[in-house]
Amino acid sequence: MKIGFLGLGAMGHAMARRLLEAGHDLTVWNRTPAKADDLVAKGARRAESPADAARGVEIVLSMLIDDAAVQAAAFGPDGVASALAPGAIHACCGTISLAQAHRLRDGHTERGQAYASATVLGRPPAAEAGTLFVIAAGEETVVTRLTPVLEVLGQRVFLAGEDPAKANLVKLSLNFLIMSTIEQMAEVFALNEKAGIDPKTVFEIMTGSFYNAPVHRNYGKMMVERAYDDPGATVRLGLKDTEMVLAAGHDLQVPLPYAAIARDRFLAAMAAGDADRDFVVLMENARRDAGLTR
Amino acid sequence: MKIGFLGLGAMGHAMARRLLEAGHDLTVWNRTPAKADDLVAKGARRAESPADAARGVEIVLSMLIDDAAVQAAAFGPDGVASALAPGAIHACCGTISLAQAHRLRDGHTERGQAYASATVLGRPPAAEAGTLFVIAAGEETVVTRLTPVLEVLGQRVFLAGEDPAKANLVKLSLNFLIMSTIEQMAEVFALNEKAGIDPKTVFEIMTGSFYNAPVHRNYGKMMVERAYDDPGATVRLGLKDTEMVLAAGHDLQVPLPYAAIARDRFLAAMAAGDADRDFVVLMENARRDAGLTR
Amino acid sequence: MKIGFLGLGAMGHAMARRLLEAGHDLTVWNRTPAKADDLVAKGARRAESPADAARGVEIVLSMLIDDAAVQAAAFGPDGVASALAPGAIHACCGTISLAQAHRLRDGHTERGQAYASATVLGRPPAAEAGTLFVIAAGEETVVTRLTPVLEVLGQRVFLAGEDPAKANLVKLSLNFLIMSTIEQMAEVFALNEKAGIDPKTVFEIMTGSFYNAPVHRNYGKMMVERAYDDPGATVRLGLKDTEMVLAAGHDLQVPLPYAAIARDRFLAAMAAGDADRDFVVLMENARRDAGLTR
Amino acid sequence: MKIGFLGLGAMGHAMARRLLEAGHDLTVWNRTPAKADDLVAKGARRAESPADAARGVEIVLSMLIDDAAVQAAAFGPDGVASALAPGAIHACCGTISLAQAHRLRDGHTERGQAYASATVLGRPPAAEAGTLFVIAAGEETVVTRLTPVLEVLGQRVFLAGEDPAKANLVKLSLNFLIMSTIEQMAEVFALNEKAGIDPKTVFEIMTGSFYNAPVHRNYGKMMVERAYDDPGATVRLGLKDTEMVLAAGHDLQVPLPYAAIARDRFLAAMAAGDADRDFVVLMENARRDAGLTR
Repeated sequence: MKIGFLGLGAMGHAMARRLLEAGHDLTVWNRTPAKADDLVAKGARRAESPADAARGVEIVLSMLIDDAAVQAAAFGPDGVASALAPGAIHACCGTISLAQAHRLRDGHTERGQAYASATVLGRPPAAEAGTLFVIAAGEETVVTRLTPVLEVLGQRVFLAGEDPAKANLVKLSLNFLIMSTIEQMAEVFALNEKAGIDPKTVFEIMTGSFYNAPVHRNYGKMMVERAYDDPGATVRLGLKDTEMVLAAGHDLQVPLPYAAIARDRFLAAMAAGDADRDFVVLMENARRDAGLTR
Repeated sequence: MKIGFLGLGAMGHAMARRLLEAGHDLTVWNRTPAKADDLVAKGARRAESPADAARGVEIVLSMLIDDAAVQAAAFGPDGVASALAPGAIHACCGTISLAQAHRLRDGHTERGQAYASATVLGRPPAAEAGTLFVIAAGEETVVTRLTPVLEVLGQRVFLAGEDPAKANLVKLSLNFLIMSTIEQMAEVFALNEKAGIDPKTVFEIMTGSFYNAPVHRNYGKMMVERAYDDPGATVRLGLKDTEMVLAAGHDLQVPLPYAAIARDRFLAAMAAGDADRDFVVLMENARRDAGLTR
Repeated sequence: MKIGFLGLGAMGHAMARRLLEAGHDLTVWNRTPAKADDLVAKGARRAESPADAARGVEIVLSMLIDDAAVQAAAFGPDGVASALAPGAIHACCGTISLAQAHRLRDGHTERGQAYASATVLGRPPAAEAGTLFVIAAGEETVVTRLTPVLEVLGQRVFLAGEDPAKANLVKLSLNFLIMSTIEQMAEVFALNEKAGIDPKTVFEIMTGSFYNAPVHRNYGKMMVERAYDDPGATVRLGLKDTEMVLAAGHDLQVPLPYAAIARDRFLAAMAAGDADRDFVVLMENARRDAGLTR
Repeated sequence: MKIGFLGLGAMGHAMARRLLEAGHDLTVWNRTPAKADDLVAKGARRAESPADAARGVEIVLSMLIDDAAVQAAAFGPDGVASALAPGAIHACCGTISLAQAHRLRDGHTERGQAYASATVLGRPPAAEAGTLFVIAAGEETVVTRLTPVLEVLGQRVFLAGEDPAKANLVKLSLNFLIMSTIEQMAEVFALNEKAGIDPKTVFEIMTGSFYNAPVHRNYGKMMVERAYDDPGATVRLGLKDTEMVLAAGHDLQVPLPYAAIARDRFLAAMAAGDADRDFVVLMENARRDAGLTR
């Protein structure tokens, strides 16, 4: 299938490569063109602009950093909307706000184009291996057309409803579960460390018994090793996602006390100069409050 | 081995039965004697008092409801301490406070007796099957003597240190992880329900991806089914455990904001008349705050 | 002095009237023109647009509902900026965000016009009597030119600095003190009511001893009388202000846990259908959580 | 009137002196006898024990540090209860828990003695001047007999009900208002300081407008001066009082989120080594979380 792909960060690059290796006819665009070099060497076409990537394809996937980036790529000068064929689909895989999902849906719908959200769970290696989890939402006919492509990317495709924003809400909710699990564990580790129990012992007991999900194992391991400087996701990003969760809570009128505390923890981490460290550094907020020194 | 066993609630009964079936020479005591009938029929001896259960045995295990109950059984009239042989061990399996663990250790040590904490994770069926997780703490020689018995009860025995209270702190920490996971999920489910997404869909995505630990699966399932009336653990019990976690935080000077919120949620549930329902009813606090009606 | 005045809600109307009665040459504009009728009868000129109110005056004061309203009035079609003379001043008295204050300053500065923030504390009767408190911020020469006008409105004019946003931050801070004082009192009243002590007794003791500021007396009285339906400020407005405080905390990287809780309380009140009641209705959140019925 | 007085700390000493100067026949007791020297020089009798102070008097007032101290003085060896005449009154002025108030009432009632709570607001200079505020609770006939004495101590005597614990709950509530006002102001001062606005400016605006109660002026002034080392009340004491407020919330089933945060702040201050500094040092928690250095 002819597919356009926008955004070649670590995650987007891995997804694009997976699609290419699965035999799709891929046109790729990235703000910094060099990121596309190896994909071009493998047969992808390099686009000059989002419009260029969208011209003549059935599906454009975008994996961009935030609301502003995808808004610009969709509706800015030389944007997707200016070139995408009627009936063709823009599917946004990035973590964006509910309001942005609605702007994308509305903007494309006005132009006779289709839109769906297709958010993804997992890290770049899973993307390359096609073992992501995909949460899609959009009109049934649109999602049905997308599904074969999404199944190349993910080991499983979940459906969240007809309103594209629902996939974004579920994705934000799952991100919130990560952040609040980090805070949970940070409190537990600080409490035990203060009592003279090595957090690694607690981690071993947790993951050896009933707290053995990837969310415990992956983040807990980094926490007890206090490995903050090879960030998978930064404090800055964690704060952004938490603000989006809280914004959803605002719009839907749902108090979210655990999210509010996560926000305060991220702000304290920002203020402490940890903006660009892995967001498991929340561990240090809890340790510092407990009088434990780094 | 000659073992005394105190406390035949659902959990204690299952543990005692497991020990009996493993061939141990068991003397059992319960405040309400009838709870021992079937064990006696299987060969256990019925004790008249904790002292009676402690006389002549190498190990007394207790599985009692709270600090006061174990204090009375250990040091009250006809208590364990009055009859336990020098060097014999009282191992407390219940969820008690750190201060109570120290009282037990000190009281037995004064009398030349040994004490260890041997807290357990899991429900009665796991106890009967010998697949609990055990977290033990105490002097190395004491724990070494206990281990063969603990290995009958648990699929794995973790060691938390020489101070018996460390096992209690780890156990309270793990209970806190349950309660805060319930609060996490309650916020997520309420947020999604308000947006028109069935919590069951979110639960399916969670447990189908990275949030698939027993703590997610077991409690999340009850939450999305809103199954509150066949309680595994009640709100009253959840509040008691949370207060013990906070008391540990107080004594160790460790702020625990997530635990503080769990406490407030439990209090609101108590005030709403839900004291004796399963503690996953915290789901309803989050729903009510979001304006969702029962 | 020739003064333009934008926004004739309850507060703006009272301020405009005060200026008129002090002898100023006033041109007034309001989205709904009828609100100006009595002022016109007293000698004010009615403007057709913000531009019309700004033409030929030395100072334009605006008292509009939110960021969007003042942005439109300043820079929209027929906005202030299109007609205000070089060097003339736009002073914004409304409660706006720090970002909006910067947008106003920058937009006017580009056009050679001056901008200052002149936020006000107090209710309409104080405005009519000229007994408001004014918090001003802006370039010293600008604020100096404004001061004689501000002294007509307020019994005292405080200066917060050269950056106009500083006046807005102080004003938002003071609003946050109101909301958090309401939450404080709500918790205290609920706690005492549950113990069988009439909140009115507690209120009498508070205001008869060390808790006798207007912020206690005015809001506390409404709370113990549970007078929610003749709103001075609504839940909707309280939530908006709280979000602006939290946004300032975000931008400045300052965790604000009390503000976060106030936000959750306002959201719960919105969800309960109390959006348009007086924001002291937070009293009912605390009562409800305590199991007290309305 | 013949009065016994127990506890000559700064506050108790000032109260005893006031009673002596008003012409009462005073017998005083303190654990460290030397604290009574100047009172004895002015005509008080020195008692050897609480019992000795209680023998032959109509009223014993106690102003002791905590639950344990008053329990020991009342019912321990040579305690008040062993010597107080039938019908004579023990009135406890200290800040104690509700449970302790009930223990005192019940213990004295059993012995045919009377008990009331007579908690006080204010500092030692107000005690010497007789300008405290008194909050009394107890059986009407008992409080009526006490009132002439309480009116010597206080400028005003408030009545909280027939259950003595009600006076304690109101007193704890007022203390909670102090602590939560400190937290409010700490957040506001940190936010403004981070924006480059001197907290002293904000304090001046607060106390020059609607936030001018003693609770704002007294504590706010110490905060903006960062005067922590001549403590009126320490972090340790603030934590103790907060725990008593939370315990009342527990027993009455009332969530108190602002009190929960104050508790966490006090714990962080304890962990930072500030246990014996004035409790306005919570200011530094907020500053530190905002990345402001001392």
